[in-house]
This record gives sequence, C-alpha cells and structure tokens, in this order.
Amino acid sequence: RRRGVPEAILADGKTPSEVAELATTAVETAGRAIVTRVDDDHAGAVQRRLDADHPDADVRVRTRANVLVAHAPTFEPPEVNATVGIVSAGTSDAIPAGEAAVIASEMGATVEEIHDVGVASLVRVLDEVDALRAADALVVAAGREGALPTVIAGLVDTPVIGLPVSNGYGHASDGEAALSGMLQSCTVLSTVNIDAGFVAGGQAGLIARAVGAARERDGERE
Amino acid sequence: RRRGVPEAILADGKTPSEVAELATTAVETAGRAIVTRVDDDHAGAVQRRLDADHPDADVRVRTRANVLVAHAPTFEPPEVNATVGIVSAGTSDAIPAGEAAVIASEMGATVEEIHDVGVASLVRVLDEVDALRAADALVVAAGREGALPTVIAGLVDTPVIGLPVSNGYGHASDGEAALSGMLQSCTVLSTVNIDAGFVAGGQAGLIARAVGAARERDGERE
Amino acid sequence: RRRGVPEAILADGKTPSEVAELATTAVETAGRAIVTRVDDDHAGAVQRRLDADHPDADVRVRTRANVLVAHAPTFEPPEVNATVGIVSAGTSDAIPAGEAAVIASEMGATVEEIHDVGVASLVRVLDEVDALRAADALVVAAGREGALPTVIAGLVDTPVIGLPVSNGYGHASDGEAALSGMLQSCTVLSTVNIDAGFVAGGQAGLIARAVGAARERDGERE
Amino acid sequence: RRRGVPEAILADGKTPSEVAELATTAVETAGRAIVTRVDDDHAGAVQRRLDADHPDADVRVRTRANVLVAHAPTFEPPEVNATVGIVSAGTSDAIPAGEAAVIASEMGATVEEIHDVGVASLVRVLDEVDALRAADALVVAAGREGALPTVIAGLVDTPVIGLPVSNGYGHASDGEAALSGMLQSCTVLSTVNIDAGFVAGGQAGLIARAVGAARERDGERE
Amino acid sequence: RRRGVPEAILADGKTPSEVAELATTAVETAGRAIVTRVDDDHAGAVQRRLDADHPDADVRVRTRANVLVAHAPTFEPPEVNATVGIVSAGTSDAIPAGEAAVIASEMGATVEEIHDVGVASLVRVLDEVDALRAADALVVAAGREGALPTVIAGLVDTPVIGLPVSNGYGHASDGEAALSGMLQSCTVLSTVNIDAGFVAGGQAGLIARAVGAARERDGERE
Amino acid sequence: RRRGVPEAILADGKTPSEVAELATTAVETAGRAIVTRVDDDHAGAVQRRLDADHPDADVRVRTRANVLVAHAPTFEPPEVNATVGIVSAGTSDAIPAGEAAVIASEMGATVEEIHDVGVASLVRVLDEVDALRAADALVVAAGREGALPTVIAGLVDTPVIGLPVSNGYGHASDGEAALSGMLQSCTVLSTVNIDAGFVAGGQAGLIARAVGAARERDGERE
Amino acid sequence: RRRGVPEAILADGKTPSEVAELATTAVETAGRAIVTRVDDDHAGAVQRRLDADHPDADVRVRTRANVLVAHAPTFEPPEVNATVGIVSAGTSDAIPAGEAAVIASEMGATVEEIHDVGVASLVRVLDEVDALRAADALVVAAGREGALPTVIAGLVDTPVIGLPVSNGYGHASDGEAALSGMLQSCTVLSTVNIDAGFVAGGQAGLIARAVGAARERDGERE
Amino acid sequence: RRRGVPEAILADGKTPSEVAELATTAVETAGRAIVTRVDDDHAGAVQRRLDADHPDADVRVRTRANVLVAHAPTFEPPEVNATVGIVSAGTSDAIPAGEAAVIASEMGATVEEIHDVGVASLVRVLDEVDALRAADALVVAAGREGALPTVIAGLVDTPVIGLPVSNGYGHASDGEAALSGMLQSCTVLSTVNIDAGFVAGGQAGLIARAVGAARERDGERE
Ligand SMILES: Nc1ncnc2c1ncn2[C@@H]1O[C@H](COP(=O)(O)O)[C@@H](O)[C@H]1O
Ligand SMILES: Nc1ncnc2c1ncn2[C@@H]1O[C@H](COP(=O)(O)O)[C@@H](O)[C@H]1O
Ligand SMILES: Nc1ncnc2c1ncn2[C@@H]1O[C@H](COP(=O)(O)O)[C@@H](O)[C@H]1O
Ligand SMILES: Nc1ncnc2c1ncn2[C@@H]1O[C@H](COP(=O)(O)O)[C@@H](O)[C@H]1O
Ligand SMILES: [Mg+2]
Ligand SMILES: [Mg+2]
Ligand SMILES: [Mg+2]
Ligand SMILES: [Mg+2]
Ligand SMILES: [Mg+2]
Ligand SMILES: [Mg+2]
Ligand SMILES: [Mg+2]
Ligand SMILES: [Mg+2]
Repeated sequence: RRRGVPEAILADGKTPSEVAELATTAVETAGRAIVTRVDDDHAGAVQRRLDADHPDADVRVRTRANVLVAHAPTFEPPEVNATVGIVSAGTSDAIPAGEAAVIASEMGATVEEIHDVGVASLVRVLDEVDALRAADALVVAAGREGALPTVIAGLVDTPVIGLPVSNGYGHASDGEAALSGMLQSCTVLSTVNIDAGFVAGGQAGLIARAVGAARERDGERE
Repeated sequence: RRRGVPEAILADGKTPSEVAELATTAVETAGRAIVTRVDDDHAGAVQRRLDADHPDADVRVRTRANVLVAHAPTFEPPEVNATVGIVSAGTSDAIPAGEAAVIASEMGATVEEIHDVGVASLVRVLDEVDALRAADALVVAAGREGALPTVIAGLVDTPVIGLPVSNGYGHASDGEAALSGMLQSCTVLSTVNIDAGFVAGGQAGLIARAVGAARERDGERE
Repeated sequence: RRRGVPEAILADGKTPSEVAELATTAVETAGRAIVTRVDDDHAGAVQRRLDADHPDADVRVRTRANVLVAHAPTFEPPEVNATVGIVSAGTSDAIPAGEAAVIASEMGATVEEIHDVGVASLVRVLDEVDALRAADALVVAAGREGALPTVIAGLVDTPVIGLPVSNGYGHASDGEAALSGMLQSCTVLSTVNIDAGFVAGGQAGLIARAVGAARERDGERE
Repeated sequence: RRRGVPEAILADGKTPSEVAELATTAVETAGRAIVTRVDDDHAGAVQRRLDADHPDADVRVRTRANVLVAHAPTFEPPEVNATVGIVSAGTSDAIPAGEAAVIASEMGATVEEIHDVGVASLVRVLDEVDALRAADALVVAAGREGALPTVIAGLVDTPVIGLPVSNGYGHASDGEAALSGMLQSCTVLSTVNIDAGFVAGGQAGLIARAVGAARERDGERE
Repeated sequence: RRRGVPEAILADGKTPSEVAELATTAVETAGRAIVTRVDDDHAGAVQRRLDADHPDADVRVRTRANVLVAHAPTFEPPEVNATVGIVSAGTSDAIPAGEAAVIASEMGATVEEIHDVGVASLVRVLDEVDALRAADALVVAAGREGALPTVIAGLVDTPVIGLPVSNGYGHASDGEAALSGMLQSCTVLSTVNIDAGFVAGGQAGLIARAVGAARERDGERE
Repeated sequence: RRRGVPEAILADGKTPSEVAELATTAVETAGRAIVTRVDDDHAGAVQRRLDADHPDADVRVRTRANVLVAHAPTFEPPEVNATVGIVSAGTSDAIPAGEAAVIASEMGATVEEIHDVGVASLVRVLDEVDALRAADALVVAAGREGALPTVIAGLVDTPVIGLPVSNGYGHASDGEAALSGMLQSCTVLSTVNIDAGFVAGGQAGLIARAVGAARERDGERE
Repeated sequence: RRRGVPEAILADGKTPSEVAELATTAVETAGRAIVTRVDDDHAGAVQRRLDADHPDADVRVRTRANVLVAHAPTFEPPEVNATVGIVSAGTSDAIPAGEAAVIASEMGATVEEIHDVGVASLVRVLDEVDALRAADALVVAAGREGALPTVIAGLVDTPVIGLPVSNGYGHASDGEAALSGMLQSCTVLSTVNIDAGFVAGGQAGLIARAVGAARERDGERE
Repeated sequence: RRRGVPEAILADGKTPSEVAELATTAVETAGRAIVTRVDDDHAGAVQRRLDADHPDADVRVRTRANVLVAHAPTFEPPEVNATVGIVSAGTSDAIPAGEAAVIASEMGATVEEIHDVGVASLVRVLDEVDALRAADALVVAAGREGALPTVIAGLVDTPVIGLPVSNGYGHASDGEAALSGMLQSCTVLSTVNIDAGFVAGGQAGLIARAVGAARERDGERE
C-alpha cells in the first residue's frame, strides 16, 4: 500500500458545489479531504455539505494558507518521526508556505514554522540558524529576488527546497525572478514551481518520511 | 564541522593551468579535488600537475560525465548508510547523470545507476520499479519533453529530484521544455536547473546523509 | 464541392446578439451553425433567436465543452466510416477535449471518448490500450506537463494529435509547458495550439474522412 | 507486432564512430538503419563500417536532407497504398523537407515532392492545387513567416502537417515565427517542432498507413 | 508650420472627465480633437462637454473603431490628393483598422476600405487586386498568423504597412504571431506595433501626403 | 509588368559556388544580380564566375554593406525622381544601413546618406534637420536602445522607417531593445525586422517610386 | 543608527484594515508611516484609524502618486543639503514619478519636479537643461520606448536613474521596452525595475544624502 | 566643458587595426584612450601603433578586465575626492568588475576593490562591512542568482549599483537571473545591463564626482 503524498483537491477553477462533492467523496473513500486554494465560498460549501452528511468529521480551515482539511472520525493520520521546517520572509509568502506546512503535517511530519526571516536583515537569519539546522528538511519560501533559500542553504546541511512565491511587479515578477534565482543558486538546493506549496510540502514530507522510517529501529524503509 | 556538499571546481571557462592550480590547492587543503565539466585539456593538465606535485594522489576521470576526482592518500571519504538512485534515458543524459552520480558518491552514498529507461517504452520503466523503490533518493535525468521524472514519481514514494537535460532542437530546446515539464509535473517532485548534475547529486546526497544518519542507532542527526 | 472542416463561429469576444445573428445566418445558408466558446448568455441568445426564426431547428449545447450546434431540419450530416478517439486526463481538459469531440462528430466521424487517463497513474493508460488502438485517429488532451500524448504515442501506431490545455500556475503555465513537451516529444505526434480543440478535432476529422473514404470499396477519395 | 514509425539515429552530437556502431547494430537487428542529421564524416564512417562488416547492405545518402539509409539484403520494406506530399518553398527548407520525405518513404508511402512553392508568388501555389489534392497527407515546410501551410490548408481537404523551418534572422527567427504562425493559423492544420522533418514525415507516414490499410479490401486496420 | 500626423488623445486609462477636458482644449487650440480607444463613458463625457461649451462643434464617433473626432466650425481639414487603402480580414480587425482609417482620413487622404479579405480564402484576395493596386499606400490589418500583408505585398508594388491585431489564444497570441510573421515576411513590407492603428494610419497618411504633394504641379514638397 | 522591389540573393548560408551560380543566372535572366550578406569568399566566387562568363558585366561590392551588385551591359536601371535618406549613428549600423542604401539606389531612387548622427549628442541631429526634411523617405538605422528614429520622426514629416540593428550585449541585445523601442515609439514611424536593411531599403524605394511617379506630370502611378 | 531609505508599506495586495494596522504601528514605532500604491479604500482606512488613535498625526495623500505619508507630531524629518530632480514626460508617468518624489523628499532631499518633458518634442528638453544640471541626482521616468533618460544623460553629468514606466500596448509593453532601452542605453545611467518609483526615489535619496553630507563642512559621511 | 564619463572604444567586433586607429586618434584629440573588451590581438595592435606614433604615451592593460588605457604625457587626469568600492564574488566576475574599476579610476575616483565576497559564505560579507560603508558609492558585481547586491544593500546606506554578470548555464543563465534578481531586489539599489562594467563604473564615477565636488569647501558643483 502506497503511503506517500496524499491526494488533494485544487479548488481554484471549480465551483463551490463541485468542490463540496469532491471533498465529501474523499472523506468517504480516503477518510480525509485536503482542499487547496479555497476561497470563502468553497470553504463554506464544503463545511455545510460535511455538516449535513458527515457531522462527525473534523473540518479545519487554515485561512492564511487557503487550505481546508477534513478528517473522518475513523481517519488514522500517519506518524512520522521527523521534522520539516517551513521558512518565510513576509506576509506575501504566507499562502504557499502555509500550504506546504499543511501538506507536510498531513503526511505526519512535525512542522516547525519560522517566519519573518528576510534577506534584507541578515541578523534575523543568523538568529535562526540553530532552528534551521534542527529540521530534517526545509521548505524556504521567497518572492521578489528569491535570495533567501540560497542564503540559508549556505548555512545548513539540511536539504533545502526552494519555494518561489509570485509577488512583486515589473520585469520578471510573478515569481519568475525568484524561480530563476533558485535554479541559478550558487549553493545546493532543489526547487518547485512558483507558488507550488503543495509540491514543496509533499517533497519535504517524503524526505521526512524516509528519515523517520530510518529512525525507527529496523532501519528498513516500509 | 560542516560535512555536507563538497566544494567542486567548475572547469568550464577556466584555462587548464588555472584548473590545475585550483585542483592542487584543493587536494592540499581539503584532501580532495572534484572538478566538473572538464575537457581533455583540463583533465590532462590536472593529471600532469598532480603527478608532479602529489604523485601519491588517486586521480580518476569519469569521461562520460566529464568529472575528475582526486583524493590525497590521507583523505577519508565520508560513509553514508543510504542509497541514491540515478536514472537516465539515453546517451545525451549521460553527462549530467554521471556528474550527479559522482557527487552523491563522493558524499558517501551508495549509488545505483539505472540507464536506458525511456518514457517511450514504458515496459522498461515498469521493469525497474523495484530498483527504483529501493533507493532512498532518486535523481531522474531527462531531456526532450522531460516526462520521465513525472512517470517515475507516480510509481514510487521515494523523493524524486528531476534533472532536466539540454538537448533537442527547435522551440523550448536546450532543456527548457524538460524543466517546464518538471515544474508543472502533476506528481510531486522537486527540480534543479538544466544540466545541473552537481546540484541534483548534491541534494540527493544531503537526503541520503539525513537518512543514513537516522539509520545509525542514535537516531540523532550529526 | 469542399466537404472538409465546417465553419464555426468563435463566440468569445462577440456580443450575444452578434453571435445569434451569425448563427442564424449559418443555419440559413449552410444548414448548420457550430458556435465555440459560448457562455450562457451567448447560448441563450442563439437559442431564443432560433426559437423565434427557425423553431424547427435542432439546437444542442454541450455545456462542458462550451459548444452549441444547430441543425436545420434539412441538414444532412456527413457520414464517415471511421473513428476518432478523444482522450483526456481530468476535468480541466474537458472544454478543449469536448470541442474536439463535437467537431470530429460534426464532420461525420464516430467519436469515442476516453476520460480520466492520467500519466501519474499508468495503469489506467495501460488498461485502455485496446480502445486507443481501435481508433483511426487520436486527439490526446493534456495540461500541466503534457506528457500523456507522448506516453500514448509510444503505445500505438495510430496518428496522435496532441492538444495542450491551458491550466496550472507558475512558470510555463497556461499550457506553454504542455505545448513545449508535445513539440519536444521523444515519440512521433503532431500538435495544435493550446486549447485549440476546434483545430485538433478538425484535423482528426480530416484523417478520419480520408480513412473512411478509403474504406468505401472504390478506394478513391471523394 | 508494431509496424509504425521506424527507429532513427540522430547523428548530430555523436562522434562518427558512435554513429557507425549504432548503424551497424540497427542493420543487424532491424535490417535497416536510418541516420538523420549526418555530416560528411558521419556518412563516411557509416559507409566504411558497413562496407567492412555488411558489404551486401544497400547504403544511400540523400545529401540535401542529411539522411543516410542502409538496408540489409533481407530487409523487406513495408508497402503502403497511399501517397504523402512533401511541399517546400526554397533551398533553406530542403533539409527538413527531405528528412520528412525519407521517413515517409521508409514507412512505405509513395512520396510526391513539390518544390519552389512560395507564398510570395501565389500563382505557383494555385498551379499545384491538383497535385496537392491528390495526396493522402501533406507535409508543408516553411520558414520565415511560415504562411505556406495556412494558404495550402485553405485550398485542400487533405490533412496538412506544418513543418516550421529555422531560418531568417532578427526577431522570432530560427523558426519561431513560422511555428507561431502555424499554431495560430486561421485554417485547420497540425504542426511539429521546428526542423522536425523526422516527426512530420513519421506522422504523415502513420496517416498514409491508416489510409492504405483501409484501401486494402478488408477495410480493417492491421 | 508642421502639417504632419495630428495629435490624438488616448482615452484608455484616463477618466471620462479627464478625456473631456483634454478634448475640449484640443478643439479650442487646434480646432480638432481626435480621441482613440474611447468607451461609451468617454464618448458620452466628451459629447456632453462639447455640447455645453462648443455646441457648434461637429462630433463624430466611429463606434467599431472606438474613435471620436470633433471639429470646430472653423477647422479647415487638410486636403491630400492621394489614396490610402485599409484592408482587413474579419470582425476582430475592425478596431485597429478603423483607427487607421480615421487617422489617414483626418490627415486628408482619401480612404478606401476593403474588408473580409482573408488568407484562408485566396479568391477574395485575388478579386481585390485592382483595388489594392489603386491605392498609394496600404494598411493591411491581420490577427492570428498575420499572413495577409505578406500575401498582398506579393501582389502589389504599393508600400504595404502591416498592422498586427491582437486576437486568438494560446502560444504567441495577442498579436505576437502576427507581428513576428510580418517582421519575418518573405516579401517587402514595414510594420507597426500590435493594434497600433493610429501609427499605421499616420504612416500611411504621411506617405499619401508626400505622394499628394508631388502630384500637385510644382513637384515640391511643402 | 511589376517594377517594384528587385529580387536579391541572400548569400548567408549558401556556399560560394551556389551563390555564383544564382548570381550568374540572375544576370542572364534579369540583367542584374543583387547579392546580400556576402563574405569575401562569396564575393570572390561571384566575381570570378562573372569574369569568366560575362566579362562585360559591371560588378561592384559595397564592402561595409556586404552587398554585391552586378549589371549586364544591357541592363537599364530604373529612374525614380525622388530621394531616400539613409541615417545611421555609428560603425555597427553600417552593414544594414548600407544594404538599405544599395537596394533603394538599385530601385532608382537618389540616395543621401547621413552618418554619425547619434542620440547621445543631440546637436548633431539638430544640425542635419534640413537634410532630413529634404528626403522623400527616411531609413533610420539604430542599435542599442534604438532611440534615433523616434527623435528624428519628432522633427520631420517625412515617413520614417526604423531599422533596428543587432549589437550590444546583455538583456534585450541583438537588436531586440531597438526593435521594441521602435514599435513602442511615441512618434509615428514604421519598422522592419532587426538588420533587415534589404526590407527597409525596399520599402523606402517603394515610397520613393510612388512619389517620383506622382512628380512626373501625368500624376498617374505607372 | 541607520539613516538611509525609510521603510514603506506596499498597500497593493493588502486589505484596508491590514494596511491601517501596519501604518498605525509604523507611526507609533518609527514616528512615520509611508504607504505606497494605496487606493481610496486603503487611504480612507488609514486616515480613519489614525484619526481615532493618533489625531495629532499629520496625514497627507499625494493622490496622483498613490502615496500616503503620516508623521507623528514628534517626528523629526531628516535634512539633506542636496537636490533630487524628478523628470517625467506625461500623465502616465505621474504615479511612479510621484512615488519617487515622495520618497526622496521623506529622506530629506529638496525635490524639484520637471514635467511634460517628452522626447518627441526635443525643444522642451533643451529648455530645461539648466534645471537638469542643477540637481545632484536625477530620476527620469519614461514609458513607451523609454528614450528620455538616454537623451537627458547625454546632456548632463549628473547621475541619472532611469525609471521605466508600464504603459502602452502590444509587443514589449508594460514597461519592458522602456526597461530594455534604459539597460541598452548608449549613455551612462543606471535603472530600476518597471514602476519602481520607491526604489528610484530611494536611490536618488541615498546619493543626495552622500552629497549633502559632503557639503556639510566636516566632509565626513554621517 | 563637460567633465563626466570619458569616451571609451569597444574593441569587441572591431578589427585590431580599426581599434589601433581609433585609439591613436583618441590619444591625439583627448589625450587619453580607453579601450574595453580587448583581446590580445587588439591590445597588441594598439601597443605597436602607439609605440610607433606616440612612444611617450603611457599604455597599460588590465588583463583580467580586458581594458587598455593609454595616456598622452600631457594628459591631466581628473582628481575626485571620493571613493568607489568595487565588490565581486569570484573569478567569473573579474572582467566586468575590473572594467568598472578602470572607468571609475579614470574619472578620478579612488577605487577600493573587495573580492571573494560570496553570498554562500555570509561571514566574508560581514567581515567587510566597514570597508563597504567607507565607500561613497559601491559597484557590486554578481552572476548566478545575483543575490550579493541585495545582501550588501541591506547592510549599508551607500548607494549600491548592481552589476549582473553573465555566467552559469541552464534557465535564465547569461546573467538574466542576476539582472532579474537585482531589479526585484527587496532592498534599494539600481542596476545596469548584464556585464556593463563600463556603465556601472561610469555611474559610480558620476556619484563620486558629485560627492567629491561637494567635499571641496565651496560646496558648489563644478
Ligand atoms: N557543474 C557544476 N554546476 C553547478 N555548480 C558547480 C558545478 N561545479 C562546481 N560548482 C560550484 O560552483 C561554485 C563556483 O565554482 P568556481 O567557479 O570554481 O569558483 C562552487 O561553489 C562549486 O561548488
Ligand atoms: N474555438 C476555435 N478555435 C480556433 N478557431 C476557431 C474556433 N472557433 C471558430 N474558429 C474559426 O475561427 C475563424 C474565425 O471565426 P470568426 O471570428 O467567428 O469569424 C473561423 O474560420 C472559424 O472556423
Ligand atoms: N538581406 C536580406 N534580407 C531579407 N530578405 C532578403 C535579403 N536578401 C535577399 N532577400 C530576399 O529573400 C528571398 C529569399 O532569397 P533566397 O534564399 O536567395 O531564395 C528573396 O525573395 C530575396 O528577395
Ligand atoms: N512601491 C514599492 N516598490 C518597491 N518596494 C516597496 C514599495 N513600497 C514598499 N516597498 C518595500 O517593500 C518591502 C515589503 O513591504 P511589505 O509587503 O509592506 O512588508 C518593504 O521593505 C518596503 O520598504
Ligand atoms: Mg547547504
Ligand atoms: Mg511519488
Ligand atoms: Mg506511435
Ligand atoms: Mg483544409
Ligand atoms: Mg510588393
Ligand atoms: Mg514625424
Ligand atoms: Mg551624462
Ligand atoms: Mg542600503
């Protein structure tokens, strides 16, 4: 049985009732629904529908991340003995970073969030070096010029996954400068697409899973 | 003491004697020189220089990967109790894939190479699923449309690092189509820049290091 | 007399009444109106106008494809003794795939639709190989990284027309990654512009027409 | 048994002796070697190697197309009862057009080549309309602004495969303008990547195969 | 005194009252206001303002071109003894083509408009050759693949100004394919920016002015 | 009989002997050969071949423009009663500007060349205003930021054809910045592709032809 | 203590109440809030919130620049003995130019604004040469082809900071042509991102600060 | 008399003898020749020519910067009482950084060069903060992801001019990622084109000139 990255429903571009339908089915078949990029209408529709059909389901919305998660009472969340660090600089990084945090968490990893760490004030970065080194995998979200993952990867030996964020204006905005900078980074890191918090969190979750499994005595991957 | 990704010398754009100078210094200070993107002139110059100054150094060139590695006799290579799989489809992937293999290996990981696995003949991919699942991290190199990492990530729960390779001709050639496809992948994977075998191997090595450390009894990261 | 791809009216960017006017004229002169990229307002206006002026016309809207087709009672649809397969992966491919299906069908081909075939779950693709091989021409719609036409073209000898779909976010979104991947495909296939279901269906219809004509005993193209 | 597009060896980027090795193996295993994008050194090396090892092989080089084909004496070429038309405007289209012609021919189709048909002198196009309509599939090569496939597709009901050619200078040169124009064409046609004569010829060959099979009495595809 | 291209007010991005203010000033100082890219609000505001302040001004709106022209009663329009032809293919070309027509006309040229001339039905183009040759300068508007100016420039010796129009969808849409095709044209023509009807009409007007001045007996440019 | 832009042979990408062959044929059939983008080998081959076959032909090479022109003794050059001004800023503009000058001259126009007019020293531009105004059409070549045609078009009512030149380095080099600037110009001008001196000269020649014909008493275009 | 570029709040993409919250905090902690890219809702929310909490604060909105500045009564603005010139061509440059003016002013520089200086009417530029030379640093805003900073930098020895403005339509619009032109300028100037009035003003302010400090007798930078 | 940025000769794309000619003229008329982007042949030709014609000239080549400077014995270099700091990370930044250093120096500024300051080892950056703050203007060269100017601008109040360097491979290489990152920087800095050391040095020189003039007692700019 595969125990990797969970399925998620991308609400963006779907109607509230379509999303409610898909989320209900997911709760019924997989015991869990994860819905990303929800707006208030999507979240409301899902919540009303689950209230009606599955009043015992546990429904949570992480608003700044635009993610909704519903667990059936019987759902047994995976447990992973490893930590994922989620690093972000400012408010505009909150949505993708939060999306990554939810996914890694739903995959069973312990999630440590480290916010307000910007490359323009290095002292904040240096203050957090110990926390950064304590994680088994790091997701580092950054918009504008996207230099933060490079700076952090230069300070730690933890695998860093760069998460470019779409913001800014003008030339190479919408995350293109950040993506380019992470791909051209003079340190070692891998990257995901712009705003792809789901993918970054999933990849960090897979690393945590591998580390956690190794940490369990048998030393064998499940 | 940092024990992560080793320094490497990028020979491309340097003269043979500059490279020989840098490699000798690396052998003297770090006990090891890793030189990427060497041509025959670079490799010859390094070898002659080390023959003269450090005749006891162990110098190896992986020709298809254009990488040269020299170890001082006193060099103690790191040992990591984990495996990195390096997957490639065809001859044009050999250089970046080989570069990744050398780096992961120099970081102490056991490296398994799986070649001739192309998306146009799925049966070869399916034949290798067990080998793919046995690795702790996978680097999957692919040029042209770059679909291979997507197909493989759909089959395994191992973290997959896509390595886009510059080949082909016409629109979106030189690896751009492959990079775009990996970033837009409908599965979970992270990616590195086009032809960045050094980065892909380094990132896979960092994951292997984390897993290997966890596999050692204490369960603490070094 | 030309019997090839029928004229269609592109509703997008026209007002409902302009579209109603053009559709009525088409019904009057050609016996048929095909309107693509209609929204509810366009469809309503056409339907009301035809109800008034041509109450005997047969008007159908394929909602998920945003296509409206109206036939005058005297319209004699072409008959083509050949099959076009339309393959899609998910809900976001529905509009262009449906547009292609309507056009091929209006050109007289038998249309077989094969949905929910995604590259991330290869087993679904393999399950459909016989159906895929049974078609005389295939339109394969795919968004994101657009790998599906490549995978299918590797399994069949039927001509495959890749139909890139605009979805996703971030770098090379809006179908550019899918288009690039189809152009760089390591198998043999041809492609059309992003979301150009009309063109893909028309080209598949032309192939079906040629095959169907050959299948009629005389072996001559009409 | 698959009888579709034959394997081909892309000489570009390989050494003459690598190409000679691959060609010899192809002759031994498949009875035929098709090598595209050969220069004089590649062709010479293949010819010398086959002269030595397989002196009975039939080796032909189509110089303007940079394609070499070798048949073992036992090789039975496929026979397809259908015609592929290859249209080109000028000397700079010769290589991709010739590549397409060789592939379609090796797939068994009858190939009709129609040259010197440029959009700037329409009368030449109009003179060839009957020849264009007689083909079962058309490959239309065009560089610069790439308008020729659009003009031709407006005149015939044969499936047209646009083959953009890399030439010109300045903005959108190297075939990008031609590719864009074919994708945006206001007629129905499909396209392949810039200079991808192999793909265009292969796709035309697949259509010809389907038509030819239908033309054989049984009306069933093989 | 300069008698060349008149000043115009670009309404797009300005408020109705700003535009009304600027138009009134233009009528007062230059005797004429030309306002391009007006919507209904802009046009209404200008008309009300001029009704109030300059009730004797002659105000005309060319709706399909989104241009408003107001003449003070004292305004003496320039007279140019030459003809500008404005060619367009379909409804989506109407706005830029109409903008060009208004400007050339306001510069004093006789304007001949030739519509519904599409490259997909060559016979319409050929039918109009005499009219095309009769003009002293031609503006040829075209969207999608933008082949029309190339085809026309191959038929006439009149200077052709290509006017790329933003329409279509997918790769190289919004007029980029049309612009690229005109720049790469295998005939001789010059081009202006996408949708720049004002510039195309102004340039054609300048040519007409030069020709018209030459046509006046003295043979001297004014 | 068409009397417009003459045919020219583009030497770039052809072998010296191919070019010599084409040039000889042109001299024999049209009485004139114009060969653009010749290097020394092309020019030498043409000259030797014409010396042998047509020793009475008049062969001239404009070296800084890389253009060769050969006239048969019977060739009667067209005469046009109008002037084309060719403006350039510096040495890197010489090739396209010279190409334009040769073509306009071969079309019969009087050509005035105005060099060393750069936007960074406005006084030079202002000094030449009278010469600029005296021309019937202006070709203004400019590389780097390409501001010169904009500045000049602001000073004259002559039709200006911007000719972007490929030079510079870094972002938007190879003439892309110059082309963009001309398309976005806040004055009225039309443009041609980067380095397309042939097209700019041809378009200026067509305008000169129209003006010249009007200047002849009858006032009718030929 | 750092006395350089002040912090600013980018209102775009934040809700009015978020902005009001951040502005209030800034007034409380730094004695000043600068908010850029405010719309009426943002400005209203900030004003109401400060009216309630800090009725003695001095709040000003520069509407054409979309900037709001609030000073606590205790705030001591920096004083810089130097002048920044802000140059713009037209109304569409007003927002970024105004943003630059506010920032330079808030940094303590004397700000001279010079408007309606367009490259298409050189005489206006020449009229202002003395004013331009009197400044210690110049910010020159320009959209469309962005030639103005190049023309001005050719006339003065003051450091010029080009500020590309997003306007226009068609190819290279949204400021890309202007940015490219400034980067490729044949004079010496530096540039900032498109519409980055904040950055241009900040950089000019830093230069003014350095000059002003030098002007104070001690000749030491603070 | 203008005393700003000196003229320089760009050797790249010119023949050695053309460059020698231009350099000699510059020495004769301006007392100084600055030649950038020289290779050995250019440098040799200039040196031989000046040895012959102006044996008393002082000729220096800064090899790593590919710049040659020649002073006539009568040349009086400008003196500027201010310092320009030139910062670079690695060997590939040497050429543009050196070019900037030479220009600033020739403009009379004191130049301080600070090398081997890379963003991947922050400690080196922090070590240099005092030196960085001591300069009146900073040129910061950086290739790959170009993060260094951002990091430095966050630490100092000196005006920073980012100088993107073309290196790296893959997506956004050749300095595009570095340029994008500097334009999108979350700190305040201005930038120049990729590899435009001449422009960066010239702009820094202009700032130094302004500061130096202010530092002279009168406090007036010359
Ligand atoms: N093939 C490679 N791809 C990416 N980075 C590399 C490669 N080889 C070496 N590097 C890194 O590039 C940096 C610059 O190398 P160098 O130019 O030799 O100073 C070093 O940090 C190396 O670790
Ligand atoms: N969805 C579509 N995609 C591409 N072309 C279309 C589409 N719908 C209609 N067309 C074609 O677009 C052309 C222009 O349509 P119209 O704008 O309605 O005059 C016609 O030749 C149609 O056949
Ligand atoms: N330098 C040039 N730039 C653009 N078009 C050219 C140039 N030289 C020749 N041509 C045209 O390019 C076309 C193709 O030339 P060829 O490749 O010689 O058959 C002919 O119509 C020529 O008139
Ligand atoms: N208009 C602007 N352009 C560029 N940067 C800005 C602008 N306004 C504010 N900033 C800076 O953007 C950064 C992020 O602002 P915020 O999103 O409010 O946290 C701060 O460092 C501001 O100084
Ligand atoms: Mg690290
Ligand atoms: Mg997986
Ligand atoms: Mg196939
Ligand atoms: Mg057709
Ligand atoms: Mg013509
Ligand atoms: Mg003008
Ligand atoms: Mg200057
Ligand atoms: Mg700073």
